[in-house]
Amino acid sequence: MSDVAVLGLGAMGSALAGALLDGGHTVTVWNRTGHRAAALAERGAEVATTAAGALRAAPVAVVCLTDDAAVRETLVAVPGRTLVNLTNSTPEQDRGLADWAARRQMTYLAGGIMAVPSMIGTPAAFVFYSGDAGALQRHRALLERFGGVEYTGADPGRAAVHDLALLTAMYGMFGGFLHAAALISAEGIPVAGVEPLIRGWLTAMTGALPAMASAIDSGDHTATGSTVRMQALAYPNLLDAGRERGLDNGLVQPMGELLTRAVSSGHGDADLSVLATMLHGGRVRRENEQQIDP
Amino acid sequence: MSDVAVLGLGAMGSALAGALLDGGHTVTVWNRTGHRAAALAERGAEVATTAAGALRAAPVAVVCLTDDAAVRETLVAVPGRTLVNLTNSTPEQDRGLADWAARRQMTYLAGGIMAVPSMIGTPAAFVFYSGDAGALQRHRALLERFGGVEYTGADPGRAAVHDLALLTAMYGMFGGFLHAAALISAEGIPVAGVEPLIRGWLTAMTGALPAMASAIDSGDHTATGSTVRMQALAYPNLLDAGRERGLDNGLVQPMGELLTRAVSSGHGDADLSVLATMLHGGRVRRENEQQIDP
Repeated sequence: MSDVAVLGLGAMGSALAGALLDGGHTVTVWNRTGHRAAALAERGAEVATTAAGALRAAPVAVVCLTDDAAVRETLVAVPGRTLVNLTNSTPEQDRGLADWAARRQMTYLAGGIMAVPSMIGTPAAFVFYSGDAGALQRHRALLERFGGVEYTGADPGRAAVHDLALLTAMYGMFGGFLHAAALISAEGIPVAGVEPLIRGWLTAMTGALPAMASAIDSGDHTATGSTVRMQALAYPNLLDAGRERGLDNGLVQPMGELLTRAVSSGHGDADLSVLATMLHGGRVRRENEQQIDP
Repeated sequence: MSDVAVLGLGAMGSALAGALLDGGHTVTVWNRTGHRAAALAERGAEVATTAAGALRAAPVAVVCLTDDAAVRETLVAVPGRTLVNLTNSTPEQDRGLADWAARRQMTYLAGGIMAVPSMIGTPAAFVFYSGDAGALQRHRALLERFGGVEYTGADPGRAAVHDLALLTAMYGMFGGFLHAAALISAEGIPVAGVEPLIRGWLTAMTGALPAMASAIDSGDHTATGSTVRMQALAYPNLLDAGRERGLDNGLVQPMGELLTRAVSSGHGDADLSVLATMLHGGRVRRENEQQIDP
């Protein structure tokens, strides 16, 4: 029997299997298309010809496939096995798979990888886990081969929540930077010259996040610095500057609309943090509808 | 004669005038509504009853009004004077005002304040300047009362470009964080517990910005890490997680659309930096139309 099976040998799955082999583990690998396993077989991995075979070959299986649909097509019931699902997923998908596994006497651990494949096995990589805490403890040494282990709770959806929250924040920052870079280059200015100023500014501005988080948790959005109204007044310059240069304002328009809506909803004197509560609008409306028409 | 005039005494204008008074300068202030000047008069400021009077009272005037329209309503020709316009503005607005000033034998310096009023006079504040370099040198000691001085070039629009680029990047980051916070709190998780992870992640991810800037400048968007295609495949989970909780996805939808468009435009194998070039779409189309139909 191998120490661990790895299902899915894309760039990330191959990196995971490689880190396990580097750590001296015996590894059985499986991939939908067979040729991906060849490089790992040369490094000592056993190659299973079916997903069921891989699952049977080890007490724990690391699953890293394209998406939830691929996971559902691939997994078969092998009672007693622990699944560590590192496939990109949503909280609901992980909760569904945890149910699926529990009904088959399998243990489920969800994971969200905060790294690109080249970072796997380095101190820069870490993985969010949630679900069965006992399984995490049993397989911790093995999982630490990938990078830092961050357990986020028993609810199997928690790893995905944390993973997606960090990615969302990152894409927001990258989106802001990309629009800024487009504006700078449209003005004929090299972006590389301004980038260090942007980077320093962004790093300084992360200092505002703790207070915003507390305000969102407490619901007290009293402004200590700029109010929503002041920002709603200044934001159009940012959109006008884009228009003046014929830029697509698509990435920056929604924040302007949200600021405007916040002022017209009576949040003009509040802190920017109030916008997070406005994003719950859809859900609040549905709950209200249920109250009106039960 | 005073050392300097300050036109506009909102929260920011008052902070600027206060920093000048703290620095031992003689200051003449003016505001559209008179009562705002009282607190500064108590601290030793002269109060002018008209904008023209304030401009005549000093060789240099710091202008900090609501917006460009207010600046244009306020300014009158007083030949020989230097205007330092710290009003929020777009590059084109500053270029227009520099022309206006030049035709009246006035010197124009544009500024973009990177601070909230409470930061004025502290080392954390800095101001982008552009326009007449000689004027900046003559009044440098005075302007350093506000915070760091960052000269960005002779083109009067440059200060606004830099100011707006930094703000754009910041709003992108804040927007990403606000959506992430909404997702976290919709899952019943305190945001303050996850915020340090987000902050650390964002700080780490700023490490990707120098390479993105270079790629945008050079036009070489060869991917070294994740490709646009991989990100376009994973991004829907982020949108689905929002939908599962009834969140308004408005802040995060445009990045998903841009990723999808990038793949369908043949940029699937490129780095994320390629998206910045796609934001120039409108302008490129207009230039092409001119070539076709001159």
